[in-house]
Amino acid sequence: MVPWSFERRAPRPKDVAVKILFCGVCHSDVHYMKAWGQQYPLVPGHEIVGEVIETGAEVSRFKVGDKVMIGTIVDSCRHCEPCLSENEIYCREFPTVTFDGTDRVDGSRTRGGYCELYVADEHFVHLLPEGLDPAAAAPLLCAGVTTYAPLRHWNIGPGKTVGIVGIGGLGHLAVKFARAMGAHVVAFTTSPKKAEQALNLGAHEGVLSTDAELMAAQAYRFDFILDTVSVRYPMDPFLIALKLDATLCSLGIPDQFDFSPMLLAMGRRSIASSGAAGTLDTREMLAFCAEHNIVADVEVIAMSQINEAFERVEKGDVHYRFVVDLQKGL
Amino acid sequence: MVPWSFERRAPRPKDVAVKILFCGVCHSDVHYMKAWGQQYPLVPGHEIVGEVIETGAEVSRFKVGDKVMIGTIVDSCRHCEPCLSENEIYCREFPTVTFDGTDRVDGSRTRGGYCELYVADEHFVHLLPEGLDPAAAAPLLCAGVTTYAPLRHWNIGPGKTVGIVGIGGLGHLAVKFARAMGAHVVAFTTSPKKAEQALNLGAHEGVLSTDAELMAAQAYRFDFILDTVSVRYPMDPFLIALKLDATLCSLGIPDQFDFSPMLLAMGRRSIASSGAAGTLDTREMLAFCAEHNIVADVEVIAMSQINEAFERVEKGDVHYRFVVDLQKGL
Repeated sequence: MVPWSFERRAPRPKDVAVKILFCGVCHSDVHYMKAWGQQYPLVPGHEIVGEVIETGAEVSRFKVGDKVMIGTIVDSCRHCEPCLSENEIYCREFPTVTFDGTDRVDGSRTRGGYCELYVADEHFVHLLPEGLDPAAAAPLLCAGVTTYAPLRHWNIGPGKTVGIVGIGGLGHLAVKFARAMGAHVVAFTTSPKKAEQALNLGAHEGVLSTDAELMAAQAYRFDFILDTVSVRYPMDPFLIALKLDATLCSLGIPDQFDFSPMLLAMGRRSIASSGAAGTLDTREMLAFCAEHNIVADVEVIAMSQINEAFERVEKGDVHYRFVVDLQKGL
Repeated sequence: MVPWSFERRAPRPKDVAVKILFCGVCHSDVHYMKAWGQQYPLVPGHEIVGEVIETGAEVSRFKVGDKVMIGTIVDSCRHCEPCLSENEIYCREFPTVTFDGTDRVDGSRTRGGYCELYVADEHFVHLLPEGLDPAAAAPLLCAGVTTYAPLRHWNIGPGKTVGIVGIGGLGHLAVKFARAMGAHVVAFTTSPKKAEQALNLGAHEGVLSTDAELMAAQAYRFDFILDTVSVRYPMDPFLIALKLDATLCSLGIPDQFDFSPMLLAMGRRSIASSGAAGTLDTREMLAFCAEHNIVADVEVIAMSQINEAFERVEKGDVHYRFVVDLQKGL
């Protein structure tokens, strides 16, 4: 990744212009730089915290000086069933992603938050809750909502036993959410160190998933498992860990899942997946984070350190999310 | 398959002895004869209708002369969570299957309904509802409950659009159930003839699933899809047909499913599977069948025709279930 200059559009009537303060480093940023990108040059970044510096004539929700957040999508069709229920991430005409997407109005390329400025329709901009550290809050808009939304959708709360698989950027927030929702939380990781550290994040138990004996002891324990592993791996031990009628939701999206259909039949179990979240879940999550004082554990870097950070993301060597401080200079 | 003689046990205190009148021919019977069987000789058959001819001293629910039914399981641990909620098919210590299983009391081999007599604990015996044809009712205890239970579990009813994939022994009953539950029912089949005939079964629409254009038009239509296809096939067109948060339940259990995880993520969709049913769902289904006069469409044969019937089952050449009339002689 190298410095590159481009111009943002002038704000349209419903747009706000946001001076970017912090932008989280998502694993998908790395994928987009290497393989997923549709068109290069490409500016990644979709975990944005900034300050409103200009508002369009019809903007009603924000004023100059507000601290705001922008996440993974910045537009959608606004008229399909998911859009009308504020689940815009599931827009049937596909939402406009924050970077490497196509603007619905002028057809231009969207460019992400690894820069000084973003301009977006206020519908997809959120107020940063007071009391949350701006740098540590940045990852909430992708890693946060991506884990919060399924935990809510599958009704996690007191009396439920929840497994979180993979304790990285997504997983560490999932542990915090599930604990704050009142569930009994079990963190699964291949790292003995992370199995211990998960307890500090709020997990009641940390289980080393490479230990076959420990895994066998998990049979029929879980009401829900949220799986944040991004590569294909043998899922059967986790399916066996599900109770009757329980669901494993995998956020990783490998090319194929590796599991035995028979294990679904033997417990009327489900395998699901979910995207990030629309404006409804995002609003709810931010209120929940403010109430429970939940932010990410972050390592703040300057943009000059980004290539090194990407390498460490690929190795899983981060506790638990990098955030770029855009005020440290490009 | 050839004639073979064996003795049933004398009834234990809670057993009823049942003279078998009819036994349905399930596709799994064919699988057991060819590959799935644990121990041969093996007597298949788990869709049994008969008449009580003897009762153990502690039997309270049946008397001699009652017309009764026995399905896929005849015992379970009786103390695990699924057993205590009458979902015995999901017994954590595994239910005792009606044939090719091991009796929990004396360790003997269970033998199925392709014969003159069955002896079973009354807990797993059901009264044949009055008014239902005994031959046509036989398939209800496997093909019936296997499709009824998931339709109920996923809350099918008025206002829901339901797809039934594969219009055979299971699928044709699923169409009847879903219609009687008040849903809008779409039958998917690879046979142009069956697509037409599905309307007679109660489907509102019959869709030829080999027609890519027709399939593309199904996008986002379905609240639930019940898939009765028993082989691995490309499921993506059916996942695309699911609405946001909807589930495809596959009853077929191939070695692997063939689908793109991304399609789950793009609609928070689920893939599930389920077994047959426990005593609770079976009781409910029989009451539902009595109320709505639902039985299978059957072709009644003599035991002497069984090998020919198996060949036709394998070719899918049956409308829609064979039932053996045990009174026609072995």
